[in-house]
Amino acid sequence: MAKGLPKRSEDYSKWYNELVKKADLAEHSAVKGCMIIKPYGYSIWEKMQAALDKMFKDTGHSNAYFPLFVPKSYLSKEADHVEGFAKECAVVTHYRLKNAEDGSGVIVDPDAKLEEELIVRPTSETVIWSTYKNWIQSYRDLPILVNQWANVVRWEMRTRLFLRTAEFLWQEGHTAHATRREAEAETVQMLNIYATFAEEFMAMPVVKGVKTESEKFPGAIDTYCIEALMQDGKALQAGTSHFLGQNFAKAFDVKFADKEGKLEHVWGTSWGVSTRLMGALIMAHSDDEGLVLPPKLAPIQVVIVPIFKTEEQLESIREVADGFKHELLKLGVSVKFDDRDTNSPGWKFAEYEMKGVPVRIAIGPRDIENGTVEIARRDTKEKKVVSKDEAVQYITDLMEDIQRNIYAKAMDFRAELTTDVSSYEEFKEVLDGKGGFVSAHWDGTAETEEKIKEETKATIRCIPMDAEEEDGVCIYSGKPSKRKVLFARAY
Amino acid sequence: MAKGLPKRSEDYSKWYNELVKKADLAEHSAVKGCMIIKPYGYSIWEKMQAALDKMFKDTGHSNAYFPLFVPKSYLSKEADHVEGFAKECAVVTHYRLKNAEDGSGVIVDPDAKLEEELIVRPTSETVIWSTYKNWIQSYRDLPILVNQWANVVRWEMRTRLFLRTAEFLWQEGHTAHATRREAEAETVQMLNIYATFAEEFMAMPVVKGVKTESEKFPGAIDTYCIEALMQDGKALQAGTSHFLGQNFAKAFDVKFADKEGKLEHVWGTSWGVSTRLMGALIMAHSDDEGLVLPPKLAPIQVVIVPIFKTEEQLESIREVADGFKHELLKLGVSVKFDDRDTNSPGWKFAEYEMKGVPVRIAIGPRDIENGTVEIARRDTKEKKVVSKDEAVQYITDLMEDIQRNIYAKAMDFRAELTTDVSSYEEFKEVLDGKGGFVSAHWDGTAETEEKIKEETKATIRCIPMDAEEEDGVCIYSGKPSKRKVLFARAY
Repeated sequence: MAKGLPKRSEDYSKWYNELVKKADLAEHSAVKGCMIIKPYGYSIWEKMQAALDKMFKDTGHSNAYFPLFVPKSYLSKEADHVEGFAKECAVVTHYRLKNAEDGSGVIVDPDAKLEEELIVRPTSETVIWSTYKNWIQSYRDLPILVNQWANVVRWEMRTRLFLRTAEFLWQEGHTAHATRREAEAETVQMLNIYATFAEEFMAMPVVKGVKTESEKFPGAIDTYCIEALMQDGKALQAGTSHFLGQNFAKAFDVKFADKEGKLEHVWGTSWGVSTRLMGALIMAHSDDEGLVLPPKLAPIQVVIVPIFKTEEQLESIREVADGFKHELLKLGVSVKFDDRDTNSPGWKFAEYEMKGVPVRIAIGPRDIENGTVEIARRDTKEKKVVSKDEAVQYITDLMEDIQRNIYAKAMDFRAELTTDVSSYEEFKEVLDGKGGFVSAHWDGTAETEEKIKEETKATIRCIPMDAEEEDGVCIYSGKPSKRKVLFARAY
Repeated sequence: MAKGLPKRSEDYSKWYNELVKKADLAEHSAVKGCMIIKPYGYSIWEKMQAALDKMFKDTGHSNAYFPLFVPKSYLSKEADHVEGFAKECAVVTHYRLKNAEDGSGVIVDPDAKLEEELIVRPTSETVIWSTYKNWIQSYRDLPILVNQWANVVRWEMRTRLFLRTAEFLWQEGHTAHATRREAEAETVQMLNIYATFAEEFMAMPVVKGVKTESEKFPGAIDTYCIEALMQDGKALQAGTSHFLGQNFAKAFDVKFADKEGKLEHVWGTSWGVSTRLMGALIMAHSDDEGLVLPPKLAPIQVVIVPIFKTEEQLESIREVADGFKHELLKLGVSVKFDDRDTNSPGWKFAEYEMKGVPVRIAIGPRDIENGTVEIARRDTKEKKVVSKDEAVQYITDLMEDIQRNIYAKAMDFRAELTTDVSSYEEFKEVLDGKGGFVSAHWDGTAETEEKIKEETKATIRCIPMDAEEEDGVCIYSGKPSKRKVLFARAY
């Protein structure tokens, strides 16, 4: 069967690339660095979007849409921001093509040069704050709680499907507030929403924390993040929420009159998750047979595979299958009945394992006689023959169990791969051994952080929000430290 | 009140622009030609998307995502296509900025020039057909029924919010089929879906027809369209569905092996509607007081405005309002209770009229005493005092009635502004008089079409699908004609 994957234990990176391709999730396009999200992959992304969008709206946010292009000069208005984002970006310089005079095709029309170059948005703070200037006059106009679902472009040379691509899809929330406290509360609220989404929908445990100065968003005062652990022991930043302070309000001169009529700069936040979450989801649970999807994000939650030799057999199976389909659909469960006669049941089993469908029902002529069906779960691959009448209840219970189980499994894995160390020797040993999160004292300087990164390729993923104060000494410099931070090699 | 609009009868164009701004739908951005869709406008677009997306999925289509950038050489592969789309487009030539040496800001890095320029997609046929080449080997891979929700860019100098912008949002369906018949059926099916959406959701009657050779999509064999009539007597193309024949399959060498193993070129379609529909929706029903929205697309279907002087009064009104809200939400009706004390009831009435909220409930202290509420409909502005217990039923009936009524009104208007003419004199008279659709015989030549356009600014909107064969003579050339076509001045 052409469907086999490399084993994770042998070549994790190749396993990932092949899985993305063979599960029909995404592929590279002819444009370097840009991906094509295939229908099956996109339907998972749509489920993610729907769940997140509801959480945003339930907390009072609305969607809007801002331009794709950023005037070059806008990027420069916030000093850190331009350093972070002006470097690798797509620059539009002309607005017309014309036929080459030698008939060789179309060429850029030199007469159609833009007065000011436009950047394809790498993120929209500058465009949005230049707009908020017009939307905000008084405290009555605040807060503004806006989100945008959009594509963004950051030129990347070394790309990997979902994890790092030049163009990617994301949502970016941009909020404006009258007080520092309110903006800080919003920043933390959105981080909590991301964590809840990751844990309850993706079944992926995350650490909530704050980035160090050198890892934070260019233009932010504080960057909060959620960090997840992949099966190869590398960390993945799964979402960020930035407290922008008054930085962008100052850069774009956005002020409001408070109740006393005094003019103040507005406080801001921004927060985003992207199609990178697809990469995290794939790596969090999948195995050597293919994708393992949490039922809450599976586009097909239940697949029914008929086992038949004759048309007559297929018809009696279809009757039972249609009954299930109808009952399950009423409960909001998505069901596919795969009655194609071009592929064998065994081929289909492998196909839906590859695609991570959580529950598989097989029905054969003997099941019809006995009033039973065979139900297999994707996560543990256990199978059970269940009476037809009990099957619907069994399946709905099973889906909850799968959702719980893959979360618990990921939790156990993370616990196993989180190590407290007290010396640099131990630190390097763990990194080169089992990998994972390494919790260690750090002296708080960018210099030490950089040295450790250079020597071990490990970065400080975050200062966990639940880190307790404890006196200690930095594993690298021996200088005093107040709390442990979380290191890891990362995607 | 700052909220007043110019009258439609005095300055239709200004009325439209002001309405878009004052109803908080959209505004121009700092980037020439690009718009900002504000939260209220975007929430209407989301309702449109949801309805269309469901119709696409119910007919077997899936969503996917393809790259924003088109390599320049791709555009040239289909001869008509490049003529139509290479002209006004955003061209990415570089992938990096750098700090200017004189400290004056960031400049384009001349060392980061792309080998081949990239075009920001004006439409995605070329990118998608270059991908389908890899997806299609045999008849088993067909049909491919894919849609994409995306942003596209066509450089426009003279822009109008929603109607004509450089960047706009749309959906573009791209399907591939084994037979001509199947592709033609798909083209017509999608046109019918657009027509159903326009009529049942937007309450906007449309004419279904086929474009002439000179008006069709560059690269298509046939372009089908739906054409709507605006209140100023101008037509608006609201959606198109293209039968591409084998044009793009040939341009990108996409072949499939049929059941006998013979290689054939694949047949294609593409179809799209855009945020232009927002412009159509605004113009179809609105009046001098503001937006009139069909209940099926209104983000807020019912607004409750309390009329109170004391906190105590507000509390007893709130109790009644919460009851309504609860009951209506259960029925899937979206309700807003506007209890702000910063604005008067009269201000709020005007505000929700401007925003086109279909139903308004006003509740005052006397209503509390009498067990009544006052219910006003936006379309006719009629008000009625209704007993509290009957209000929910009254409102759900009323919403259906509003949906029906604004459709009927638009139908009547169109009937009044559709004229059959038999001479060129009459043709020009009607165009310069009441305007609207003018049905007339045409000799079928591009030359006559062009002459009429030059002389009257009217274009052939379509050859209606229900046009009966009848012998006649072209109003311009006097040559024989087999059926009447529909002319109009258009957006």
